[in-house]
Amino acid sequence: MDFRELDRLDRRALLRGTAMLGAGAMMMRPLPTLAASGPMAAIRKAAEAGKEASVKRLRDWIALPSIAAENRNMAEGAAYMAELARDAGFSNVEIVPTDGQPGVFGTIDVGAPRTLGIYFMYDVKQFDPAEWSSPPLEGKMVDKPGFGLSIVGRGAVNQKGPEATFLAALHAIRAAKAKLPVNIVLICEGEEEIGSPHFRQVATKPNVLAALKKCDGIFIPFASQDKTGAVDVNLGSKGIIELELIASGEKWGRGPKGDVHSSLKAMLDSPAWRLVQALQTLVTPDGNTPAIEGWFENVRPLTEREKMLIREAAKGADEAAEKQALGVNVWIDNLKYDDALIRLAQEPTVNIEGLVAGYTGPGGKTILPGRAVAKLDLRLVPNQTRAEAEKKLRAHLDKHGFTDVEMNVSGGYDPTEVAEDSRLVRTELATYKALGVKANINARLAGSWPGATFTAPPVSIPAAHFGIGHGSGAHAPNEYYLIDSTNPKVAGMVDATMGFAEFLYTLAAIK
Amino acid sequence: MDFRELDRLDRRALLRGTAMLGAGAMMMRPLPTLAASGPMAAIRKAAEAGKEASVKRLRDWIALPSIAAENRNMAEGAAYMAELARDAGFSNVEIVPTDGQPGVFGTIDVGAPRTLGIYFMYDVKQFDPAEWSSPPLEGKMVDKPGFGLSIVGRGAVNQKGPEATFLAALHAIRAAKAKLPVNIVLICEGEEEIGSPHFRQVATKPNVLAALKKCDGIFIPFASQDKTGAVDVNLGSKGIIELELIASGEKWGRGPKGDVHSSLKAMLDSPAWRLVQALQTLVTPDGNTPAIEGWFENVRPLTEREKMLIREAAKGADEAAEKQALGVNVWIDNLKYDDALIRLAQEPTVNIEGLVAGYTGPGGKTILPGRAVAKLDLRLVPNQTRAEAEKKLRAHLDKHGFTDVEMNVSGGYDPTEVAEDSRLVRTELATYKALGVKANINARLAGSWPGATFTAPPVSIPAAHFGIGHGSGAHAPNEYYLIDSTNPKVAGMVDATMGFAEFLYTLAAIK
Repeated sequence: MDFRELDRLDRRALLRGTAMLGAGAMMMRPLPTLAASGPMAAIRKAAEAGKEASVKRLRDWIALPSIAAENRNMAEGAAYMAELARDAGFSNVEIVPTDGQPGVFGTIDVGAPRTLGIYFMYDVKQFDPAEWSSPPLEGKMVDKPGFGLSIVGRGAVNQKGPEATFLAALHAIRAAKAKLPVNIVLICEGEEEIGSPHFRQVATKPNVLAALKKCDGIFIPFASQDKTGAVDVNLGSKGIIELELIASGEKWGRGPKGDVHSSLKAMLDSPAWRLVQALQTLVTPDGNTPAIEGWFENVRPLTEREKMLIREAAKGADEAAEKQALGVNVWIDNLKYDDALIRLAQEPTVNIEGLVAGYTGPGGKTILPGRAVAKLDLRLVPNQTRAEAEKKLRAHLDKHGFTDVEMNVSGGYDPTEVAEDSRLVRTELATYKALGVKANINARLAGSWPGATFTAPPVSIPAAHFGIGHGSGAHAPNEYYLIDSTNPKVAGMVDATMGFAEFLYTLAAIK
Repeated sequence: MDFRELDRLDRRALLRGTAMLGAGAMMMRPLPTLAASGPMAAIRKAAEAGKEASVKRLRDWIALPSIAAENRNMAEGAAYMAELARDAGFSNVEIVPTDGQPGVFGTIDVGAPRTLGIYFMYDVKQFDPAEWSSPPLEGKMVDKPGFGLSIVGRGAVNQKGPEATFLAALHAIRAAKAKLPVNIVLICEGEEEIGSPHFRQVATKPNVLAALKKCDGIFIPFASQDKTGAVDVNLGSKGIIELELIASGEKWGRGPKGDVHSSLKAMLDSPAWRLVQALQTLVTPDGNTPAIEGWFENVRPLTEREKMLIREAAKGADEAAEKQALGVNVWIDNLKYDDALIRLAQEPTVNIEGLVAGYTGPGGKTILPGRAVAKLDLRLVPNQTRAEAEKKLRAHLDKHGFTDVEMNVSGGYDPTEVAEDSRLVRTELATYKALGVKANINARLAGSWPGATFTAPPVSIPAAHFGIGHGSGAHAPNEYYLIDSTNPKVAGMVDATMGFAEFLYTLAAIK
């Protein structure tokens, strides 16, 4: 889930284009007093009593990394996920085979009128232990200044911590002998970190699809809070396709098939130059706007409401600090800050993630490479689709004579949208308000996530992310998830557990 | 010395554009009978008697790798080089400091009318022992089918083997109590493998310059023979500049200074796109001809004689085999073979050696890189110069608005030319003829070497490479140099030693 990488940059505030909502700029009450009385008191008591078990559950899960890119512990990870689900009260738990790695599916049917979908990923990103301060599978407790005692490990925040916290809420409700106020449908995948290539197979399995279609919406548990305690409520996100463009002598029929001595350039064509020439047709000369034929045909401009949300958010932001953090002097096209934030949300992009050809080490090496690769990501906005984008890119290359330049699409998602007046979003906002947490409505996340599996047919339900609490370092070394908060505005694991419980009761009660 | 990499490709035949000369297509007599009688007999006897010592001298030298890129054993390597020179009879041997690694200089003045310059490099290319079949510093003897028993080690052929063989000739002449027929000036450097950045400082030190200017010419000892026993006599070589073009947010003042999340492309400029746009101005749209302003201003077209030499050579070559070996279906611009070989010798090139930006591992990673690098080599032909090329490339980038794109020139050489009627070339041809070795005149090597240090002012003497014998794997694992030949057309170390002795006497005697 690409947007989770954003917190590595610590620039979430920049990306959300937020407007303040809910409880207003200041929190109504400090988090530790949440649900200290009334019908939630027993659940809180149970959550506190179960905290050690919840942390152990998370630590044990971190110790079993499932990594699809390395085909590591996949069967074990699915089995463990199924066991975690059963343990939390899900019945009919099944491991769902796909053409890739298996998904997991289960339900809790309490006969409630409303049903909530929950999306889990049981896989984690690759890691290099040498880059970590403590072993990435150990789950060491470390103090994070400004936040508090945190568990450090691969998957801590992305996504096992928030997921384990959601499970902790189910355990607490059961331990408190409270009645679950909504039915729950759980769908899990093991390939999120490689772009969810087979997740649609899980979601469209007839019994899974039938269950999902009954949901009022679905969310992924998320540790949303920054150091001010604020959270985002995203009304959609961009789509993405990630791909390699490959020019090669092999495919081209010109230039060498392997690397040859560079002096031969005088009598041979060069796949590296071929790639450069193909690339430069994809964007305007300033590199800033896609120039692929028909690219904007289905682009829906932002609504006035969406632009207003972004402009309002811009007013509260510190432009100079953002620029400094990103290391930039100017925004694209020399735009003003609010216009740059609108462009961030509105425009599709063609980005070069990486270039790889020939010799890439220190200094030089006199070769003419037989192959050159550009790694691109193309962000898509409503109503573009991934399928449309792939087709148009191929047609563009072909039209410009680059029929030999290969497109190796590794993954992607359609853009998503979720209506501001959907019950899912209204429940999020109401829950955050009840929790005294400042919620910012984000018109459109510039990042991407596999929510379109849910928002698009045949599932067609609202999809979002939800949760208080905090963590950071997704995809990076020393990833962590906050357990015992020392920051009065940020939830530790028990408060985050209560946040999920609050959501369930709010969903059951909201109009 | 970039042209030595060519044998890794085993395509020397392709690159030389050769015409047969000298003893004709068949050798006059098998190598083992060389100098078996007459005044050279005593020298041969001494060379045979000294063979074990010569091999040991080479093996010991291989065991001490001087690698300028790693600043490894440089002082030790220079001291060892000086000791080797003294041991072979050079006097006034001095280590010549430079702003980089030291050179070594020495002379043997026997009061002869003629003086020969000899160029040595004491440094070797980097190596990774894991890639080798035997330890790269061990000098293991291994049978190479079709050639014979060979010593395997880093520097074996590039260039310690041929150099040790030249020293063996001096030892043999002395041991035979023969009078050296010419004076010898030895100049050595330790930075050849990093592009000879300070070699001019060695060559222009007043006493060294004065000694060099007395030379009839200078050569680097070389194991020139392919499996047919044929050798090349090059009448010049292309020059080269190697450089990195770097686009960065840091320098540009636009785009991020470091890598940021790729979704930000919608509001930030991209250094990677900047690089692509700058690159594509450097060549014609097919990537085949430099489009840098004024690039061809000083290019001297090949003479009719030079073209004739190439066309003659093309007749003897196996075009289909060349294409197969290179993995190509067509030559550049769909040229006929002989025209492609003429283009190979004639045209300057702008080649992409490598592209490096952002994420270069498997799959993708959603970043917008703050920096993008193209590694280029630009081959130069007479009468271009490296200084001119650097200046014109910078001016071109500036004129096109890419003042921010950095040029990081790591090394380079001017083109060289040596007259076919120079005493050096005539001596080479006469020596090869006397040895019964087929010599091919190559109008211009498409590769590059630091010979311009000698051919250009203030030294201004003919420079070339000379030697029989065989080896392969320069810059590659399992580099080797032939010691005991089983191929009747190819010289082992003793015959190669006699080849150098023959050259010295021929130079003394030729008109």
